[in-house]
Amino acid sequence: MSGPAGSPQRADHDLAFLLRYENVAWYEDGAVRILDRRVYPAELRFVTCRTHGEVAQAITDMVTQSCGPFTAAAAGMALAAWECRDLDEAGQRAYLKTAAHTISHARPTTAARMARITGGCLAAAEEALAAGKPVDRAIADHLVAANNKRYGKVAKMASYLVDMIPDDGKVMTQCFGETIVGMMLREARNRGKQLHIFCPETRPYFQGARLTATVCREMGFDTTVITDNMPACVMEREGIDVFTCAADAICLDGHVVNKIGTFQIAIAAKYMGVPFFVSGIPDESHKSRRDIRIENRDPEFVLQAMGVRTAAPGVKGYYPSFDITPPHLISGVVTDLGIFSPYDLPRYLVQADLGPYEMVI
Amino acid sequence: MSGPAGSPQRADHDLAFLLRYENVAWYEDGAVRILDRRVYPAELRFVTCRTHGEVAQAITDMVTQSCGPFTAAAAGMALAAWECRDLDEAGQRAYLKTAAHTISHARPTTAARMARITGGCLAAAEEALAAGKPVDRAIADHLVAANNKRYGKVAKMASYLVDMIPDDGKVMTQCFGETIVGMMLREARNRGKQLHIFCPETRPYFQGARLTATVCREMGFDTTVITDNMPACVMEREGIDVFTCAADAICLDGHVVNKIGTFQIAIAAKYMGVPFFVSGIPDESHKSRRDIRIENRDPEFVLQAMGVRTAAPGVKGYYPSFDITPPHLISGVVTDLGIFSPYDLPRYLVQADLGPYEMVI
Repeated sequence: MSGPAGSPQRADHDLAFLLRYENVAWYEDGAVRILDRRVYPAELRFVTCRTHGEVAQAITDMVTQSCGPFTAAAAGMALAAWECRDLDEAGQRAYLKTAAHTISHARPTTAARMARITGGCLAAAEEALAAGKPVDRAIADHLVAANNKRYGKVAKMASYLVDMIPDDGKVMTQCFGETIVGMMLREARNRGKQLHIFCPETRPYFQGARLTATVCREMGFDTTVITDNMPACVMEREGIDVFTCAADAICLDGHVVNKIGTFQIAIAAKYMGVPFFVSGIPDESHKSRRDIRIENRDPEFVLQAMGVRTAAPGVKGYYPSFDITPPHLISGVVTDLGIFSPYDLPRYLVQADLGPYEMVI
Repeated sequence: MSGPAGSPQRADHDLAFLLRYENVAWYEDGAVRILDRRVYPAELRFVTCRTHGEVAQAITDMVTQSCGPFTAAAAGMALAAWECRDLDEAGQRAYLKTAAHTISHARPTTAARMARITGGCLAAAEEALAAGKPVDRAIADHLVAANNKRYGKVAKMASYLVDMIPDDGKVMTQCFGETIVGMMLREARNRGKQLHIFCPETRPYFQGARLTATVCREMGFDTTVITDNMPACVMEREGIDVFTCAADAICLDGHVVNKIGTFQIAIAAKYMGVPFFVSGIPDESHKSRRDIRIENRDPEFVLQAMGVRTAAPGVKGYYPSFDITPPHLISGVVTDLGIFSPYDLPRYLVQADLGPYEMVI
């Protein structure tokens, strides 16, 4: 299964093996196409959006996940520029500003990070307007450049992360860390490490079973799927060396927002003395956990598995999509500048000198 | 959905509403019938065993679960007595002894408890042989009496357990505690407690979603199913008052063997300051966790959910059926004689003065 040939962010990369697992989205004149992660990898299907409103809806509907919404958001901004191309400059600015609001609020938990992405697109639009160039193409080019920069940073993070894993290490993951997972595996393979990877299946969407385990196996590592009630038992019985995951948001006070279940595995890891490394870049828009609003998704989704109903009528579901892990459960935050203590994240921002609209990993 | 009218252990009870959720098994001349818990409650199907070997195989195959294997084992012993009814006394003794070994080793984790059950049946057989009565009927009668005695004890345990739950308490369960769950709910309802019950779904079999949540809802309580990666998050967000479960075995040193996931929730409960009560009777055949052998089940079963495959080819599964929770994570062991510290369980055995073959709950 290979990715769509026309995807512009692919053209610049030799990372095809990784990008197969990316949350792919790209802009073409008049449309945004998004890999439908709800059915992938069982099925390779793309959702086509004809308006930026449809892009926002696709993000809300979880068509794409992990970093995918950020790419889709930028592509959606290019589409918005296409939609308003016949307005005057002031009209285009107003249209794009409204579109930025619509897209960045498609999912509440990530609104602040989304606003960075749409902000970057608005800046690219300004430059294009000033230069009299097509705004949609400028935003699409901005997206490619931002992703290229992001890939370079993730490769550095992966190198620091792999330093933490023994040569024959047993690694536990959580959910799907997307680019960082692929880069970590590539780095470990390049160094000849023989990893044994245990992937909790990650209910209710099974990202661990469907995505993480697949890429780990295809990269040639010994890969085992466990159910979400097994991590503590497996840590104890199998002697897990490292628990690691990516994050949906890393607050400056060291609280980490990630897929539901991360908090629980982190508690077990602390209990068991297993180090827990989170890969990602601290987000200055989230000063502390008070800035986090956890998204509740459709509770009915918890009452089925792979489309088959599990519970009786009248039973309720409950579906917080993320949880928050406090810094005292985290051994280190793996960034492109090295591994930081979760209590020392503001220093990362000082050292990193991020551009105002840089795409946060 | 009501139980089979012919089941002898039902005739003596007015607990029909509870027994619908029991792991039903009973003996009739020449056959043992076992409720197939693998498909219940979606389907009401009974497995018919014509030999005690088939009963042992059904136990191995997880046709019945929780306390069900113990009832099935005794019914299987009655069937063995039927099979050898035409042998002389010595022949019957030898046949039954071999059958007891076969049946009690159908599942390794519970072999010691099973041996108590089959031992009780052998004693009942001796009495019948001495009195010249039909041995199969004597063993079947012994099973009914043992279950009656067990129900009485469970009712006392339920009363002590409900004492620990606030009137509008939020309770988290794990897997399906069978009789104790039903008795707890009845006791709570009788006392007018308005419980809110959160049931982790209990992968890979979904006992929490399929069984526990159903009985909780039918008893009129507010019932919510969560996935197995949510307990820590739900404890924190919803303010769970009590975590409680039954046990497959309670060692005299306070280690508790129960469905995979119990250990992990217990760690989270300890972290969160939520008390954790285990209901059950200490098992003198398990002095310590060293006497426990954890059963590994078919790893492929973890790679599907409700019959739908989740993982790619080449990915391995891992399926320890139980885990072991150490005493320092347990607030109390709820018995028919009150709530004991997990460090003080030998005292229970002194006070309880159990008969040598009494059915352990």
